[in-house]
Formats: sequence, C-alpha cells, structure tokens
Amino acid sequence: MRNFSLAIVGATGLVGREMLRILEEREFPISHLQLFASERSTGLTFPFRGRSLEVKSLEEGCFRGVELALFSAGAEVSLDYAPQAKREGAVVVDNSAAFRMEPWVPLVIPEINPSDLEDQRGLVANPNCSTIQMLLAIYPIHLVAEVERVFVSTYQSVSGTGYDAWEELAKQSRDFLEGRQPKPSVYPHQIAFNLLPQIGDFNPKGYSAEEIKLARETEKILHDQKIRVYATTVRVPLFRGHSEAVTLQTRKKLTASQAEEILSLASGVEVIEGQDYPLPLNCVGKDAILVGRIRDGGEEENILQLWVVADNLRKGAALNAVQIAELLKDNL
Amino acid sequence: MRNFSLAIVGATGLVGREMLRILEEREFPISHLQLFASERSTGLTFPFRGRSLEVKSLEEGCFRGVELALFSAGAEVSLDYAPQAKREGAVVVDNSAAFRMEPWVPLVIPEINPSDLEDQRGLVANPNCSTIQMLLAIYPIHLVAEVERVFVSTYQSVSGTGYDAWEELAKQSRDFLEGRQPKPSVYPHQIAFNLLPQIGDFNPKGYSAEEIKLARETEKILHDQKIRVYATTVRVPLFRGHSEAVTLQTRKKLTASQAEEILSLASGVEVIEGQDYPLPLNCVGKDAILVGRIRDGGEEENILQLWVVADNLRKGAALNAVQIAELLKDNL
Repeated sequence: MRNFSLAIVGATGLVGREMLRILEEREFPISHLQLFASERSTGLTFPFRGRSLEVKSLEEGCFRGVELALFSAGAEVSLDYAPQAKREGAVVVDNSAAFRMEPWVPLVIPEINPSDLEDQRGLVANPNCSTIQMLLAIYPIHLVAEVERVFVSTYQSVSGTGYDAWEELAKQSRDFLEGRQPKPSVYPHQIAFNLLPQIGDFNPKGYSAEEIKLARETEKILHDQKIRVYATTVRVPLFRGHSEAVTLQTRKKLTASQAEEILSLASGVEVIEGQDYPLPLNCVGKDAILVGRIRDGGEEENILQLWVVADNLRKGAALNAVQIAELLKDNL
Repeated sequence: MRNFSLAIVGATGLVGREMLRILEEREFPISHLQLFASERSTGLTFPFRGRSLEVKSLEEGCFRGVELALFSAGAEVSLDYAPQAKREGAVVVDNSAAFRMEPWVPLVIPEINPSDLEDQRGLVANPNCSTIQMLLAIYPIHLVAEVERVFVSTYQSVSGTGYDAWEELAKQSRDFLEGRQPKPSVYPHQIAFNLLPQIGDFNPKGYSAEEIKLARETEKILHDQKIRVYATTVRVPLFRGHSEAVTLQTRKKLTASQAEEILSLASGVEVIEGQDYPLPLNCVGKDAILVGRIRDGGEEENILQLWVVADNLRKGAALNAVQIAELLKDNL
C-alpha cells in the first residue's frame, strides 16, 4: 500500500479543518499534504501528525504532483480552480454544489452508490449535507419497500453556513440576552432565538436552493427519477448538527419495528430507540447518522416516520469526502 | 349590551397574563374580574384598566357569581376545579388538554367551528396551540380542495411550556456562551442550542402526546374522521412563537397561487409572500397567524406546502380562549 499526495482547498474553513482531523483519525496514507485557502489565510499554520503545515494560496501549477484534491471553499472557488486541479493531474472531490448535477460527475455517498465512482473523469461531487443524512436513513428502507414520496423538514445549524455564521449566532445571542438589539450580517434576519425558513435563493416556484438540492440529488444518487421529495429547509439557532423530520410513503408496507431492524443493520446508521432519541447536541464528532422516533402509519397507510440527526460538518461534509477519497485512491 | 363577571384561573402564568392583556385590548365588557392562581402567587397584584387586581387562591365557592371562567393552569387544575366552577354557575373555557376529547365538550376555533358552541354544556375546550395555527391555515384550503393527508413538522418555542422553561432557555444560553455546562431542569435535556424531538409522553406506537393532539383535535374540529395528520413535534430554542412546515395532499388540485388567494381572504390569516416569509420573531403580539412559502407539487401531484407561524401565547392560547368567551357571552 503506497502513500498519496493530497491537497485541501478551503483548509481554514469549518469543513476544511474537519477534513484535516478526519484524515489524521483515519490514518489516510499520505506522502504529502498541502493546505490551500484564500489570501487572507495564507501563512497560517495547522498541526498535522505532529508537523506544522502552512496555508498557501492557489496559483497556476499549485496542483502539480497532487493526486487527490479535496475542495471545500464554496462553489465559486470550485468553478475557478477545480478544472485547473484536474488539468494539473489531481482527482478532485468537490464539496460544493458547483458540479453536482453535471451528468458526467458522480455524486456519491459511499454507503449507497460507490460503484458510480467507476466512471469518474477526474472530478467527484460530495452531496449536500442534508441530502447525505436523509439518504443514509432512507436508502435501506427504499431497497425493501420502495419509497415513493419523501416529506422532509430540516432543522439546520449555522455551521452549515460557515465560521461567520457561527460567530453571528454567538454574538446575537449574547446581545439579545443582555438587552441589546441583535444586528444581522451573515443572514438577512436575526438568527438568535429565531428561525429562517430560507436556505439559498428561491426559484420561481418558491422552492429554495436547499430544497431543490434535496430533491435533485436524491434522484441522482438513487438513480430513480420517480421518487418525489417535498422539503422545507429551515435554519435554526444551533451551532452544529442538522436534524430532519422525515416521513415516507412507500409502495410496500413496513412496520416501525421492521424499519428499525433494517436500519439497525445499515452501514453508517446508528438507531436510538425506546424512550430515547437522537439529539443534535449528541451527534457532534460522530461518524454515524442517528435515527430515532421510528413510527408507522398503522394498518391502513404505508407511512414511516423518522427523526434523523447528523454532524453536518462530519458525515454531512468532511467525512463523506474523505470516504470518497479512500475509495478513489485504490484506483489511482 | 351588559357587562359580565369573569375569572381567570392561572392568571400569573404566561397565558394568563396574555389573557388579561387581551381582555383589556379588546374591551371585553366586564363588570367584575377575579384572578386565581396557586397559593405561592396569592397576594400578587396585576394592573387592569387602571385598577389593581389581587391574585386569590381557589377555594370552595370562589366561582359563585362568576359567569365566565377562563382556565389556563394546566390539566390537573382543570380536572380539579373546572367541575366546581361549572357547578357554581360559571361557563368554563379551558385551555388545558383535560377535557378536549370528551364527546360532550365543544373544541372550538371561532373562525372554523363556532356553531359547535351552540350545544355547550358549561365547558368549552380551547385547542392545543399547534393545532390552532395549523387548522387556521388548512381549513380554507380544505373547504375547496379536501385535505386528505397532512404532514406537519413543528418548531415550538419554550413559552409553550411556561415561565420556568423561558427562564431555563435564558440561563442555559448564558451558561453555554460563557463556557459553563448548562444544567437541564424543566426539560430532560439541554434546550439551549439544541432541539428536543419530544413534546409530551410517548404512546406505545412512539407518537408523542403533542403529535396525537394534532391528529385527534383536527378530526374533532373539522368533524372529519378521514383526514390523516402525520406530525413530528419539536421543541426549539426560541422564547416565543411556534412555526410549522405543513405539506398537504388534497383530493382536488390547487395551485400555489390559488391557495394564496384563498388564504389571503381567510379570517385570522395574514399571507406573507414574494421574497419574504413569516418569522417567529415577527409574530409576537399579532392576532393573525402568518402563512408564507406557499408552494405546489406541480402538474402531477396534488400537493401544497406552507410555512405557518403564530404567537403561541396569543392565537395559540389566550386570544382563542377570549374569542370563545366573546361568542359565549352573547348567549348567557
């Protein structure tokens, strides 16, 4: 087993730092690791396996010799630099939305559609955080009972937006508790002690970009154009961890206890049942997504309900990207 | 038009105080108003129409001469004292869950089923906060398109639990922001910067009491045993205002713009559309429920999606109870 030359683009962001942590934890075989970020972060250093790595800025030729480049710096950076990375010889795993719906780009959750990596052409997309945790919970049920419709409401923490949003929630919360008027900056409205039922821009039908992602990415990952996803995506005043209330209409009937049994055997899923249930507070740092509150619609209806919680920075982003890189390296 | 003798039971609670405010705002014709609460609050005074009212404790005979008694002190107090109030001659409007599902007790949202008051036998129940706001949004659509299934996820603030929960959210939030470990007391787990997907006890099928209320109260208020409500009810770290992501399967197709038109004409409903949407922060003190993010399922599916926000202490509790009292007084 040989070692690989890696790069992280967006290394100073919340997801980038988590990638660094996960590469270390999982002992990814690395010969050389380069960290890239925007110019304001150039020169910062991060510890990795007892050494100190300096953050560099992106420039022509910077991906030469890099075999795997993990991008998590937003769609614009990916659009600008992923083609360059590819051209200079790296295989890109892109955490942004930039290329996800391109027909030639595999969109992969390793527990679900690893075989889509076989046809990769130098760029693989990491799905959206809310899609990953939803599909890990749905897929094992879909295999057995065929999911026809998904009704999902999300409760998404501010870490999905990034560092500035994290700081904004903390600052606004302090301001509010101390009687000062919180000032919105990252979000269009106050997030502290409030909810924002908008994640991304609205399309002409009134669906937000995040809601569209849940629907389109599900179709692509499951290779199923018939499955319908009706989502409402909401930003909640939590720092970390996304939660989803998921209701499924299935073609075949499954009872709650059958669904629980299926999910308890599924890869990447931890079932929490009985009087207990998954909490966003308890998901932080966990690789598995947590599923609980499994209920069925009774005799007359083919309905299943689930409560799904995951660490959005981890399985929702950094971990899934590193898992994709682990699969890719075996064919480099 | 004559004046009436009223009592508020649970006058010192969040809902009780809101009732007092609303009776004053709406100029309810009152000859005499008595405030009752538990013994630890006895002797406290509250201003009402320029006078000061003293809080008294409940005792035998305390409802003699009272024509309308508004109860909001929890199910136990209602079970103990509502029968006495009735016996002593008052008509009770009960905000607790104690009597809601009794067949002889009308469960009323004045904009929807005021005629159910015609058969009242001395006790009328106020529906659950999350039911009221959901049905105000659904009912006008149901009349036109026949709602078959409701998929609803709630985002409920701590004021639904009461004062202690309000204090707990503030204290835990401060503790967390200042690096201290928040201690749960009112709720079984930390509520600050967290979500609790449990409101009320679980039944053997895994549904919480709040989820059951949404289903059963909907059937009773709409006089429709066929309508199916699949709810996930979640406590969120907000002080005030409940939000609901509601998806409807209807028998007849309605487009989003048809639904918007219908809702904009509905009583007790304010539609917020375009690039804007209802926020819990903006609902406080409003009588109307706010509906926005109205979307449809396109050509193939009879689906409507709504985002519904309301002041849970007001239309979700105190205002609805006072509106019931306004209707009742005309037949006393």
